[in-house]
This record gives sequence, structure tokens and C-alpha cells, in this order.
Amino acid sequence: MAPAELEAFAARAKADYDGWAAKGLSINMARGKPCPEQLDLSEEMLDLDMAGHIMCEDGDVRNYGILSGIPECRRLFAELCEVDEKNVIIGGCSSLQLMYDFVSQCVVNGAGAEPWIKQGKVKFIAVVPGYDRHFGICQYLGIDMVNVPINADGPDMDMVEELIKDPSVKGMLCVPKYSNPDGITYSPAVVDRLARMKPAAPDFRVIWDNAYCIHGLYDEDDYLPNILEEAAKYGNEDNFVVFVSTSKISFPGAGVAAMAASDNNIAALTERLRYQIISYDKINQLRHVLFFGNVDGIREHMKKHAAILRPKFDIVLRTLKEELGGLGIAHWVEPRGGYFISLYVDTGSATEVGRLCKAAGLTMTGVGATYPYGKDPFDANIRIAPSYPSVAELEIASKVLCSAVRLAACEALR
Amino acid sequence: MAPAELEAFAARAKADYDGWAAKGLSINMARGKPCPEQLDLSEEMLDLDMAGHIMCEDGDVRNYGILSGIPECRRLFAELCEVDEKNVIIGGCSSLQLMYDFVSQCVVNGAGAEPWIKQGKVKFIAVVPGYDRHFGICQYLGIDMVNVPINADGPDMDMVEELIKDPSVKGMLCVPKYSNPDGITYSPAVVDRLARMKPAAPDFRVIWDNAYCIHGLYDEDDYLPNILEEAAKYGNEDNFVVFVSTSKISFPGAGVAAMAASDNNIAALTERLRYQIISYDKINQLRHVLFFGNVDGIREHMKKHAAILRPKFDIVLRTLKEELGGLGIAHWVEPRGGYFISLYVDTGSATEVGRLCKAAGLTMTGVGATYPYGKDPFDANIRIAPSYPSVAELEIASKVLCSAVRLAACEALR
Repeated sequence: MAPAELEAFAARAKADYDGWAAKGLSINMARGKPCPEQLDLSEEMLDLDMAGHIMCEDGDVRNYGILSGIPECRRLFAELCEVDEKNVIIGGCSSLQLMYDFVSQCVVNGAGAEPWIKQGKVKFIAVVPGYDRHFGICQYLGIDMVNVPINADGPDMDMVEELIKDPSVKGMLCVPKYSNPDGITYSPAVVDRLARMKPAAPDFRVIWDNAYCIHGLYDEDDYLPNILEEAAKYGNEDNFVVFVSTSKISFPGAGVAAMAASDNNIAALTERLRYQIISYDKINQLRHVLFFGNVDGIREHMKKHAAILRPKFDIVLRTLKEELGGLGIAHWVEPRGGYFISLYVDTGSATEVGRLCKAAGLTMTGVGATYPYGKDPFDANIRIAPSYPSVAELEIASKVLCSAVRLAACEALR
Repeated sequence: MAPAELEAFAARAKADYDGWAAKGLSINMARGKPCPEQLDLSEEMLDLDMAGHIMCEDGDVRNYGILSGIPECRRLFAELCEVDEKNVIIGGCSSLQLMYDFVSQCVVNGAGAEPWIKQGKVKFIAVVPGYDRHFGICQYLGIDMVNVPINADGPDMDMVEELIKDPSVKGMLCVPKYSNPDGITYSPAVVDRLARMKPAAPDFRVIWDNAYCIHGLYDEDDYLPNILEEAAKYGNEDNFVVFVSTSKISFPGAGVAAMAASDNNIAALTERLRYQIISYDKINQLRHVLFFGNVDGIREHMKKHAAILRPKFDIVLRTLKEELGGLGIAHWVEPRGGYFISLYVDTGSATEVGRLCKAAGLTMTGVGATYPYGKDPFDANIRIAPSYPSVAELEIASKVLCSAVRLAACEALR
């Protein structure tokens, strides 16, 4: 662009942005929260008369006991995770809590070796951009993080394979399907390289957060190989612990979370759980089993979620294309599932974009949040969470965002 | 007793026991589990149509957020714990989990000082006999335990005051009201001495497990001073964290648990929770608020529990008196609330009593379980849990137990 062209473009961008800023908007796209219409899809679950359903196969769901979850619910999640029932433990409402508790367990009691905290500084591989709450777990528990960028087919495996030669590298945090925030699903080749890993640390553990395992937006779902099966081919099944939940299937914060893992890891998890809790909420477990029936029931249910979410993703993606396409100032991934659209501002002005959006009444995920310690080394990534606002709000919000990106780009280019 | 008298007594005891053993009984008095009739008291809670109650004062209970619990539920527990709403955090279903998580937090991140795990060996005072799952938390998290015996008015405070001069003594585990297993409520004088404590460790924390805060069996409830108020008189409010739950009010494992603590402790707890979980189950919190209304509602509900439990405690206590009274071979406490009766076998034959009971089809709490590491130094304490069996079963079970105590005493005296 010639200087005059740039100035004309900047003037238009400024006018455009100022127009939006004058409207006194208030739209929140910060978090991957389901919208009320999505929550209504599970309304019948709240109507279920549980007084008529107090018995599970192993006894009274109202009383103490059944630490690993009621058999019916373990089977449901075993089906979902494609593992044996014995390799599933049902938790409370939050898979984040299950992940935190597992990492904390490794810190204090180790993962088959010395407690991590007694081994000096330990590190985790953080696939970036990634999920801020994953990074938070490491930060709070004193685990350093090393960034590994994500490519179109998953984490940069050359880097991963190099890093795991260091025995102080104890694990890795990842969302392998419809990743947060890029919506990338790891390719079979990447999954195979992960499954083959022989880390120097004998107590290396991957937090395989399969949060969006069944959260496709289109008829054809992305394919992610079963990591526990793949790893078992190389005798590496202990390297992975899988986490899932119904937070974005039934109710966020009132659903059911679960872990799937190897026999050894299940034994270590169960040993800790014996001290931590007598049993998780089995009434809620049974409630979910009654509502969904089986994994086909979940699949049908997810189609209704997709029908609500698809137009929201579509409007954002269309606006990005119309307003930013071909300008060479930003790029993004077109996700086929999950909860986010990841926008990259090529001029390194993400912080400024965030500031401009906020000033115009549009709250985005805090810029930097998708990187450990809140530090995006390129100041480029902006996470868009289209699930909560209405389509009408998203139409406006996307335009506000694009106008902010254009304006910030002009400022940077000047 | 003269030798001949003893032999005659022993022969009767043997015949008596053999009679019971021949009956092929199968009765379980191992755990403090509410009986089905108690669970039925909350049946209406399971019938509540929550689809019509999705909003709390702070928003939609079905969605993410409201980390510390919905205001309505915090108020309910604030009333129960006699503290400000801001000093309450609502958890999941399990107070054991809240305790484990808090102790784990202190181990990894400290309690206002260096993480406990970085301070070398740290110790907790264990009031004995006590609750096996408390001891389990310490054991799993690598905290040594020092026994302090309980007297009729609470823990031996001379010992406690001596022990806390050691800066490696970091805390204490106790059930201050209707203690597990003795049913002893700490006297105001003992509570005052606890409140005054100035431990050498600046990061000393008492796990004040008020599990039976509203679990009296008779019209007149035991009085336990409010520990947070008492400690605040001496500027020691940070020394205590209070834990309660509705496990024995609504549903064990599907109720609501909560913590009450000083501003400083609430801040430290909240800081950790920010990393561990997005929010606990708010639908279940609202369900409990709708069912109970306020603390008077809980009080009324507990009268119904007491009406079911009282005859059970009565039959056991009457049998102990009739069958063991005046023999000088056993003594016990007559609790006025809680879930247990604590029997002491003066001849140090608790293990043998447990063995005899089991052989006769009566499962008791594992002998030794009421002491850290499962080691009762006197082999004397037997925890009786009368809540789960029926009155008819308890009538038999108590007699079996007494016959086993008599037989074991004869063996020991020989």
C-alpha cells in the first residue's frame, strides 16, 4: 500500500470504528459459555423425577459409596471414550478439577516415581495458543511451561520430541480435538508421534483434555485416533490421561466429568481418590444416564447444539472474510467444531485490538490469555468465543472486532 | 473374680457367643451411613422441578460461574455456621474433599508461609480416637501425626499446648461437636484454650470438621461456641477453617459441602479454587436452598432424622448397659448426637472382639481405624455405627458385640 492509500484506508477504518464505538454496545465474547438456548436443550433432565430412580446397578445412588462412579455412567463414558468400563472413573461436575487434582497428585505423590515437587524445577509442554485454565494449573502448582506452537495438524512434533529428552519435562497439556482456541484436530500422524514418545522422564504424563470430543459443528466430524489405544501399541499407555465432561453437552458446572486411563493410572488415581472423597454425586450420574441413554443419545443431542452454534460460527467467519480477507493484516483458522475461532493479527497489535474492542463495549478473551503467563510472544492471537451472544449480537460484534483490527493495523503500519 | 467364677463366666460367654455365631447373621455396622428411611426424608428434593428454577440472584445456575457459590446458598450456610456470607465458600458434595484439597493446598502452596512440603517433615495433631478419613488425608499427603487423647470435655489441652511449641506442628484435625467416634462436644473452656493458641508455626491450621453441627439426637442440643468468633477475640481467626456438609442432612455424596473461614483464609482458598474449578454444582445448591429455605428448615428436618436415629442409639446403649454394665471389662460414652457410640474394651482385646464379631456375621468398623496408621495403642476402641441397620438388627448386633466383648475379656484375663 502506498502512503496515501494507507492514509485513506486508515481514515475509513477510524470512521468505521468510531461509528461502532458511539453505539454504546455491551457484548461479551470472552468465554466459551453455552447460550441459554443450548442449556434449554437439557431441560428435561431437570424435570426428571429422581425420587423414582434411586437405585443403580450397584445400590442406592443417594448414599455413600461407589467411588469410581455408578456402572451405568462408567459404561456411558467408556463408550464415549472408546475404552473398557474399568478404565473410566467418573468425577464431579468439572473436568478442570479432575485435571488439577491429577497434576496436584503428581506434584505431591509423583507419577510412579519421586514426587515432582522433590525433583527440583519441573516443566510442562504447553501447546500454544492454548487454554488459559490449563496454564493456570501449572502456574499455581509451580510447574514451568515451555511453549510449543500448534501447526495445522497439531503441535510441532519436532520440538516436542526434542523437549522430552529433558527429564525435567514431566508432561504436556493439550486439547487434541477442535483445540482451544484454534479448533485444530491433531492428525493421525501427529497422534502416532505422540503415542510413540519415549520421554526421558519415566513419570511423564500428557493431560489429554478431550473437551470437544463430540462437539463437531457439521455433519462430518473430525477424526481423532484413540490415544490410549495408539499409545498401547508402543507400550506407552501410561503416558496419557484422558479427560472429558458434559459441561458443553448438558450443563456447564453441573454436568458430569470423567477420566479414562491405563490400568496403572486408574490404580494411582483411585488410590488418591480413596483419601480425597467417599463418592462423587451419583444422583447426577444417574440423571445423565437416564437422559442420554447411550452415546447415540449424546450424539443426537449434540446435533441440536451444533444447529444452534453453526450460524454463530458462520456469521463470524463470514464477517472476518468480508472485512479482513485479502488485506494481509490477519489470518484465522476455520474450525469444524469446538467453541472458538482463533484470529491472528499479523501486525502484532492484539493488545491494541483488545483495548479498542473494550472501549467500544465488546469484551473479548483477555489478549495473551491463550499463552502461558498471559504472554503472547507475537501479540497476535485473539480468541473469539461465539457461543454465548445471539446471532444478531455476533453480526455486530464481528464487525466491531474487524474495524478494531483494521484500525490497529494502520496504527502499527504507520 | 475368683478363678472358678471366671471359668463359669467364660463358659456362659462362650455358649452365648456360639449361639449367636450359629445363626448365620449378616449385619454391617462399619460406617456412619444414614439408613434408607433417613434418605427418604429428603425425597421431595428429588422431585423438585428444577427446570422452573434456573435463576439465582447472581444469574443462571445452569451455566459457568459464581465460584464461591450462589448467594442464597452462601447465606444458608452462613446462618448454619453463624458467620458472614462473605466468609463462606460453597463446595461440591463432599466436605472430605474440601478438607483434602485445603490440606493439599497448604502442602504445595503453603498457608501464608513456605509450602509445607518444603519445610521438611511436618506434623499434625490427631485427636484420638478420631475419624479414619482425616488420618488418611495426612497419610497420603505425607504429614506425620501425633496422637492427643480426647477427654470428656475435648482434647487434652495440656498436651496440645505443649505440642504447638514445635514449629513443625502445622495443624490439627478434629470433630468438635459430637466427635467421631466418642460423641463428645468440646467444652467452652476447651474451645477457649484452642482459640487462644499461639502456635510456634505461623502457618498452623486447624481442620475444624463440624460434621455434626446440627445432628443432636435429643431436644436439647449440645452447645459448641463459634470457633471463628472465639479465635477472633485473640486475633487467631486464621488458625481455623470450618467444614460442614449436608451429607447427613440431605444425601451422603449428593448433598452440599461448605467451608467457613477468616477473610485471609477465604482469600487463599479462593485463589486456589480459581485454578482448580470454574464453579461447583449450582443447580444442586439451589435445589438445597429451595428444599430447606433457611436454617430453621434444616433444624426441623434434623428432628426427623433424630426420631429415626434415637431408638437405634437407645437400643445399643441399653444393651451395652445390660450386658456389660458393672463388669469392669468395658466402658463407653453416651453420646447426645452424631453418628457413633465409642466402646472401650478395658482388657485391650478390641482386635479379638472385631475378629469374633466378624466370625459371627457382624461387620464392625475395622479395629484400629479410629487411630492414625490404624494403630490403637491400647487395642481398646471399638466404633459402633448404629445408623444403618434396623432397630431389630441392632438389637441382635448389640448382643453379638457384647457376647464377643465378654468372651474376649475372659480370654485376656486367663
